[in-house]
Amino acid sequence: MSFAAAVHAKTIQLCESVLEMTTASGSGHPTSALSISHMTTVLMYHTMRWSTEHPDYPTNDRLVLSEGHAVPIIYAAYADLQGVVGEGENRRPLTQEDLSTLRAADSVLEGHPNPREGFPFFDAATGSLGQGLSVAAGLGQAARLDGSDRRIYCLIGDGESREGQIWEAIDFIADYKLTNVLPIFNCNDYGQSDRVSPQQSPETLVKKLEAAGFLVTEIDGHDPDAIKKAFDDYIERLGGEQPMAIVARTVKGWGSRILHGAGWHGKPLKRDQLEKVKEELASKRLELATGLSAQESFTIQPPADAPQLPKPSGELPDFSETLAKADMGHLRSMATRKAYGVALRALGKINPNIVVLDGDTKNSTFAETFANDPELAERYFEGRIAEQNIISAAVGLSAAGKIPFVSSFAKFFGRAYDQIEMAIYSGANVKVVGSHSGISLGPDGPSQMGLSDVAFMRAFTTMKDHRGNPGCYLLQPSDAFAAYALTEVMAEYEGFCYMRTLRPDVEFLYSDSTVFNLGGMEVLTEGKDLLLVASGYTVHEANQALDGLDQAGINATLVDLYSLPFDTDQLLDLAQENNGMIMTLEDNYGGAFGSAVADALTEDGGSFTLKQMYVKRVPKSARTADELMKMCGLSAQDIIRESCELLQVAGVQG
Amino acid sequence: MSFAAAVHAKTIQLCESVLEMTTASGSGHPTSALSISHMTTVLMYHTMRWSTEHPDYPTNDRLVLSEGHAVPIIYAAYADLQGVVGEGENRRPLTQEDLSTLRAADSVLEGHPNPREGFPFFDAATGSLGQGLSVAAGLGQAARLDGSDRRIYCLIGDGESREGQIWEAIDFIADYKLTNVLPIFNCNDYGQSDRVSPQQSPETLVKKLEAAGFLVTEIDGHDPDAIKKAFDDYIERLGGEQPMAIVARTVKGWGSRILHGAGWHGKPLKRDQLEKVKEELASKRLELATGLSAQESFTIQPPADAPQLPKPSGELPDFSETLAKADMGHLRSMATRKAYGVALRALGKINPNIVVLDGDTKNSTFAETFANDPELAERYFEGRIAEQNIISAAVGLSAAGKIPFVSSFAKFFGRAYDQIEMAIYSGANVKVVGSHSGISLGPDGPSQMGLSDVAFMRAFTTMKDHRGNPGCYLLQPSDAFAAYALTEVMAEYEGFCYMRTLRPDVEFLYSDSTVFNLGGMEVLTEGKDLLLVASGYTVHEANQALDGLDQAGINATLVDLYSLPFDTDQLLDLAQENNGMIMTLEDNYGGAFGSAVADALTEDGGSFTLKQMYVKRVPKSARTADELMKMCGLSAQDIIRESCELLQVAGVQG
Repeated sequence: MSFAAAVHAKTIQLCESVLEMTTASGSGHPTSALSISHMTTVLMYHTMRWSTEHPDYPTNDRLVLSEGHAVPIIYAAYADLQGVVGEGENRRPLTQEDLSTLRAADSVLEGHPNPREGFPFFDAATGSLGQGLSVAAGLGQAARLDGSDRRIYCLIGDGESREGQIWEAIDFIADYKLTNVLPIFNCNDYGQSDRVSPQQSPETLVKKLEAAGFLVTEIDGHDPDAIKKAFDDYIERLGGEQPMAIVARTVKGWGSRILHGAGWHGKPLKRDQLEKVKEELASKRLELATGLSAQESFTIQPPADAPQLPKPSGELPDFSETLAKADMGHLRSMATRKAYGVALRALGKINPNIVVLDGDTKNSTFAETFANDPELAERYFEGRIAEQNIISAAVGLSAAGKIPFVSSFAKFFGRAYDQIEMAIYSGANVKVVGSHSGISLGPDGPSQMGLSDVAFMRAFTTMKDHRGNPGCYLLQPSDAFAAYALTEVMAEYEGFCYMRTLRPDVEFLYSDSTVFNLGGMEVLTEGKDLLLVASGYTVHEANQALDGLDQAGINATLVDLYSLPFDTDQLLDLAQENNGMIMTLEDNYGGAFGSAVADALTEDGGSFTLKQMYVKRVPKSARTADELMKMCGLSAQDIIRESCELLQVAGVQG
Repeated sequence: MSFAAAVHAKTIQLCESVLEMTTASGSGHPTSALSISHMTTVLMYHTMRWSTEHPDYPTNDRLVLSEGHAVPIIYAAYADLQGVVGEGENRRPLTQEDLSTLRAADSVLEGHPNPREGFPFFDAATGSLGQGLSVAAGLGQAARLDGSDRRIYCLIGDGESREGQIWEAIDFIADYKLTNVLPIFNCNDYGQSDRVSPQQSPETLVKKLEAAGFLVTEIDGHDPDAIKKAFDDYIERLGGEQPMAIVARTVKGWGSRILHGAGWHGKPLKRDQLEKVKEELASKRLELATGLSAQESFTIQPPADAPQLPKPSGELPDFSETLAKADMGHLRSMATRKAYGVALRALGKINPNIVVLDGDTKNSTFAETFANDPELAERYFEGRIAEQNIISAAVGLSAAGKIPFVSSFAKFFGRAYDQIEMAIYSGANVKVVGSHSGISLGPDGPSQMGLSDVAFMRAFTTMKDHRGNPGCYLLQPSDAFAAYALTEVMAEYEGFCYMRTLRPDVEFLYSDSTVFNLGGMEVLTEGKDLLLVASGYTVHEANQALDGLDQAGINATLVDLYSLPFDTDQLLDLAQENNGMIMTLEDNYGGAFGSAVADALTEDGGSFTLKQMYVKRVPKSARTADELMKMCGLSAQDIIRESCELLQVAGVQG
């Protein structure tokens, strides 16, 4: 029998499953699924080298479904192949019966791909469009580092390819000649609300990809032989340096006239419609695969044996020791961003899994300390000015067992918050480090200052990820020792973290012996009248205020709240020891550290008074951090004045 | 004398000013500024039609400096031309002396462009890269609507053109044949930390732009005649339909050998270096403009008279009346997203300034109710799947006097939060409406749910914009009457707003006579034992819980907190009337409505107990909103159980 007929027969069988399961579920995207049906069949039954029993085996070829809503066709094939689902002891082959549980509360078959709900065939949660190709690029970088010849296939919607991030990923793949990643554009010509723009037509996509340096093959996405040939050619050409892409013309709702055209996006069939469409598919089978049993079998090639990878070895030296080695032993102050770079390099030497990405800011974030070390350079990936791509690429690297640290200005990650949210949903072990946070940045002005990042990331410190851990640990070191230690803490913890670093040099507050933990805080002075809760740069302003407060007769406790979430009991004890009078200090907008403290106090139910000091106006340029602290009412003098007002004591000129 | 010599002379004069002012300021980006020096001279002294006395005159040609860090050269030209700066009575011509105040606390000369600090030559705050071309496209759309022939020139860095948003804007310009926008790519070959990638080389940019359908002119960006010819050709061809772009090869640090090459990004010269570089510029003048006075004058063409534009007329009809007209008078429930569409259409009929943008979700957000009305269709702009572009384009539309409503799924705006922040800094009168917010979305799963949006947007409700208003009003209507009324409230308010709408139909709670205000809340039931503070979908769960609470002997007050910020005194009174026992209910992660309540309670200093109920785990797919409410512990039954626990009363089977 012919390969084409076998593929048609299998595809039609899978299409029926898709229609059945989406009708059973009452929602889903059958027409999008049908448009990638033939390519899915050829990939999963023929081209990909993978193990259905061990869907997360390290050298399996991977399929990243960037247009996540088309996932029912993958589920259909996966059930037909009895691929393994579930976590740990609950691992079992997916059955045909399972398909009818699509999108149910107790099902592993999520509405959009999500490995963390028990579908290990996927590496990352997708469905928020435009992110998959970056994830694939991260998987490709990891495979190259590991000396694995695994190939990563990425299915991208034509409408989706309007997202700029797709083109950030295309440039990243071209920069690194990542030929082990194959972008496949599924051109079914229909978006959700309209036809796809001519700017995303197959013709234009081919031109754009060629302009970006890709070798492009255009195919009919429902012609089994053409699909097979395109994949075979790709594999043959793998030796070369030019990245490749496939642009496939497909039909949204393939196999059914009823389902063609607009108005069907995301809509399942009603029962009665289902029967009619199944008749259409039956006649398609007669036309394309006469006499051939849908049981016609394919042989899936197994993956290569996983290579032995180097393991972490050795201990991280103390910060003082590391400084001394780098002829910086004399320093008494340093920017936390710089200490981050020092830590990153030292960690890179003992842990081969650590990789670093940055977006053309490595000389500001000090990721360059890692990148410029010849021993480590191959584990540094320059993402250029494209923050969305480096976040999603880190998700791919993490899925392949790496520990990615991703840095840029805290402000610029704001355009990648959707990608960060998807990283958390993917259970990615990614560490995002935002530098130049807060108004202490100074003269560059608000377009460069991270001021809303704490409020956003804090949302994920209030909820639990699939491991039962906080969705995010938010860390803000107030000195170089803290930055060095917390970078190590992030590397050792498996889960998502976000660290804020500062531009200006700040005095050392701590020593090698100070212990920093996720969820911890550091008490700098113990008093009884007022609890000052500071973080980052404001710890230093608070420190300067202590004498003035003392002169005013205020005996203050100063806490460095360097982590969210934190130990609420410890904070409540400190609040009670200070008569329930608390002041929080932060160089960002509200809804952040102060609000986290307010949450803890109000949940306890005692009587507390909390004064929150934070940035309450749009800042502007000023030449020094001090000027900005004064402009925004966060200087030591402001702290003294506000404290006196809060405690109703007479102020003293500090 | 020749045009070229005059441009060189003027340019060299401006370059000297740039070096002087950045050295005086001790920071800034002289080398980037020098790379666009000749193009700036030709644009501002020759090609652009504008008024230096009225820099914000409606028909002035506009310059959008997407690579905002290069702004010192604009300041230098502006001072030379005595352009007007400052707000209201403080308007005055910029002087040469002012230049030395660059980046000072009391200066209008921000580190990056910002019209809100007194520099009206610009339309939007830029400096967070990749956003300017979208702003320019918005200005272009507005000019076309207004029948103005103003032209919008946009300077984009080569490294910056790695940002996907640039290509989202390019596709948007091509879709709409916005020939009144001219993208100018400044290829100086150096980014911040490295050379620019070959993917952003002039050759590759030309190919990419041609692939996107643009007519591209490549020029030497320091050849005055070539620059003039390119602009003249652009203006000549304006009748046509093909969008145009210029790719200019330039030198980062033009005019000085000392400043060439890497290592100079963002670095001003030291005093002693300054003298050497000025000598280099002096010899450049000898070489290029011998004997010509830098005072050689150009004639700037004035803008055309501003056209008369239609004004808002008529009153918005009541919601019931609008429903009746649309044969929906019989309805007793409706999704808030649908009511938004109804309001948008009705508002569009009475206010010609209202424009609408959406990202291929208009049939889900119900922006289509506006888009599909033939009378309104020309004021609807389809952005396709590219959320960053529609936010920044809205900033441009707003700068031209329009009132843009921008809609997509709340979740997808997460990738445009940096753009939203820049919109707020620009003082843009933009209304962002995020639909499918919260877990009530149901089966699609977390990749489609807006869950962190409240925490992020809340940051801007805690600070003040340049008008002294909250940076953002966050609104969440709990029924269709509220959604209709709040859409009108947003249209009438000048400033940035964010509204969350829900996917499922919800029962009507209110009537035409209910009044909704920015900062308001609605008391649904008055009790004495417990204050329930709900918002959006959870108002309905709380409503269902009231009987059960009553049976348990709990007389609860239910408040619909539909606005952040809100009247804290009113909330504190209600809390006190309920013995200081409060429970907040929200279908998003923490750090949101409940935290805002906690902030208010702790600032007051009384004794309160607050139980916050929100989404505390990553949700997954489930087939109904009810299942998800139960899964996340937010159902009516959960509210009853938690209330009984909080008040330590025996629960009753509700």
